[in-house]
Amino acid sequence: MKRTELKELGEFGLIDRIEADFKNINSETVKGIGDDAAVIDNGSNVYTVVSTDMLVEGVHFDLSYVPLHHLGYKAVAVNISDIAAMNGIPKQITVSLALSSRFSVEAIDALYQGIKIACDDYKVDLVGGDTTSSRAGLVISITAIGVVEKNKIAYRHTARPNDIICATGDLGGAYLGLQVLEQEKQVYLANPEMQPQLAGKDYLLKRQLKPEARMDVIYELNDIGVVPTSMIDISDGLASELMHLCRSSNTGAVIFEDKLPIHGETYNTAVEFNIDPVTCVLNGGEDYELLFTISQEDFPKIKNHADIALIGYMTNIPKEILLNTKSGTPVPIRAQGWVHF
Amino acid sequence: MKRTELKELGEFGLIDRIEADFKNINSETVKGIGDDAAVIDNGSNVYTVVSTDMLVEGVHFDLSYVPLHHLGYKAVAVNISDIAAMNGIPKQITVSLALSSRFSVEAIDALYQGIKIACDDYKVDLVGGDTTSSRAGLVISITAIGVVEKNKIAYRHTARPNDIICATGDLGGAYLGLQVLEQEKQVYLANPEMQPQLAGKDYLLKRQLKPEARMDVIYELNDIGVVPTSMIDISDGLASELMHLCRSSNTGAVIFEDKLPIHGETYNTAVEFNIDPVTCVLNGGEDYELLFTISQEDFPKIKNHADIALIGYMTNIPKEILLNTKSGTPVPIRAQGWVHF
Repeated sequence: MKRTELKELGEFGLIDRIEADFKNINSETVKGIGDDAAVIDNGSNVYTVVSTDMLVEGVHFDLSYVPLHHLGYKAVAVNISDIAAMNGIPKQITVSLALSSRFSVEAIDALYQGIKIACDDYKVDLVGGDTTSSRAGLVISITAIGVVEKNKIAYRHTARPNDIICATGDLGGAYLGLQVLEQEKQVYLANPEMQPQLAGKDYLLKRQLKPEARMDVIYELNDIGVVPTSMIDISDGLASELMHLCRSSNTGAVIFEDKLPIHGETYNTAVEFNIDPVTCVLNGGEDYELLFTISQEDFPKIKNHADIALIGYMTNIPKEILLNTKSGTPVPIRAQGWVHF
Repeated sequence: MKRTELKELGEFGLIDRIEADFKNINSETVKGIGDDAAVIDNGSNVYTVVSTDMLVEGVHFDLSYVPLHHLGYKAVAVNISDIAAMNGIPKQITVSLALSSRFSVEAIDALYQGIKIACDDYKVDLVGGDTTSSRAGLVISITAIGVVEKNKIAYRHTARPNDIICATGDLGGAYLGLQVLEQEKQVYLANPEMQPQLAGKDYLLKRQLKPEARMDVIYELNDIGVVPTSMIDISDGLASELMHLCRSSNTGAVIFEDKLPIHGETYNTAVEFNIDPVTCVLNGGEDYELLFTISQEDFPKIKNHADIALIGYMTNIPKEILLNTKSGTPVPIRAQGWVHF
């Protein structure tokens, strides 16, 4: 029997394969696979949006340096971020855990403590889940459920040429936070007596260990009357997410190197680690900021926003994504998505 | 630091602990933790019901004898069963997988083939999910979403004394199917040349490998105008589920040994394995039948139903659950739920 390795197919190949095989038959299903969340219309004046994520020990987190309460918080936040990316308001989550016997009740309490703080912060109810044992590491699967007014939903496939591309916050920090933690782990393994050297890295560590879903931006956009023409959350890196928007919307994009939002600590640490800061911004994952497009007419409402960078514009050249460097040279951008396998 | 083992707390202890800590704040949340599915009211004339389950290799299934396409089917069916247990109609599912590199694309295709057949059978749309790598075995996390007319929802906590207790299909078969498969595995491990002895066990194997959610019963109850006064699906065994209904509804129950539904193959195989058939019915898991209560006035509508057994009645003595044996002696029933840890 033929054996094809998963890595030959890759993440997008696998998703495409599933999407091609499954056709939606229920009229309630407005949008299935292919956006940050599924969109369901059960006949009210809001859509129900549903998103799910699975976090696996040894793949997504390393318990040797990730405190359980931060992990609980982050697991919720990354799911809320998907609801935010639909311009939605999160309302409920379910939390399923697979645990081995090495976890004590106190450890589970710490995990749920983080989950609870996130529920309080994002005003969501924990409404269910499943808890089971695991032969190996910890697995956390969370489903987030939210609502969005029908005329305010933001998909990936609805960007248009000339729309302005916006990014919230700053990028690349979570990736460098991970590099700092990995380095300290290696130092510790080599010499357990060494004290960790984390001074001056507070911002990066926070970005990696306790990211926030940008619900504040969602509420603000609503207040100033801006509905993004498209939106996605930045979980795998700006380049990858921009490619998703362009692929779904059948557009291209031009972004400007000198507009890319980067924190001073991110920049300095990148230099220290001998990594190009722009690469961190483009390909570093886990920032959980929002990437969205707006109509040109909404430009005045947003142009002076301290926490939203206007980084470029959509074009009518499908899939061509160009980075306009500081020297003025346009460079094509590629992104692979993750290759876990 | 104090360390308390998870097994000291148990499944119910852990759920109680979580439930006590988390309070619902959103008016959309009608019912959170503590039923087969969460119940959400987003302002339409139906409730949205959401349930989630996690299946872990080596805990819930053994790939040495479970074909991947059956596993895919079963993973969907057990979630649909939770929607059925709310008297709901399933509409969408999300499927998240953690996979190690030992799974080929062909293996994943087989798994999704089973998922697709279940989606077709139960008329649900696959609307999302997450696929990631795993350092160890396969983990499948499925969330099912459905709808139920508001006046037809069936909770666990709404049974009343004198309501008639009903069970669909027959019980204990899935458990004995598992015993047969485990026995064959041991024989095979001892001598790989031996052919499996599965003749005459077709029904039990089907019950274990490809259980069905009883949506047929849900549609039928609707057709004959019966709304259960309470309902739960039988995933952990009749005794455990009856205890859930009684605990939630603050009732007791009397059930009759001679009314318990058992298939001939289940009975004979139990005797063959030297296990009390009644124990299989009461404590064997994974049948995914429905346990529900109806008002006495609905008795005539259901009394001659070939696939619904009327097994007893609810009492006003909280938590006292009695089995009236064939000899006429009432015996108290206990149930532990699972103890995975």
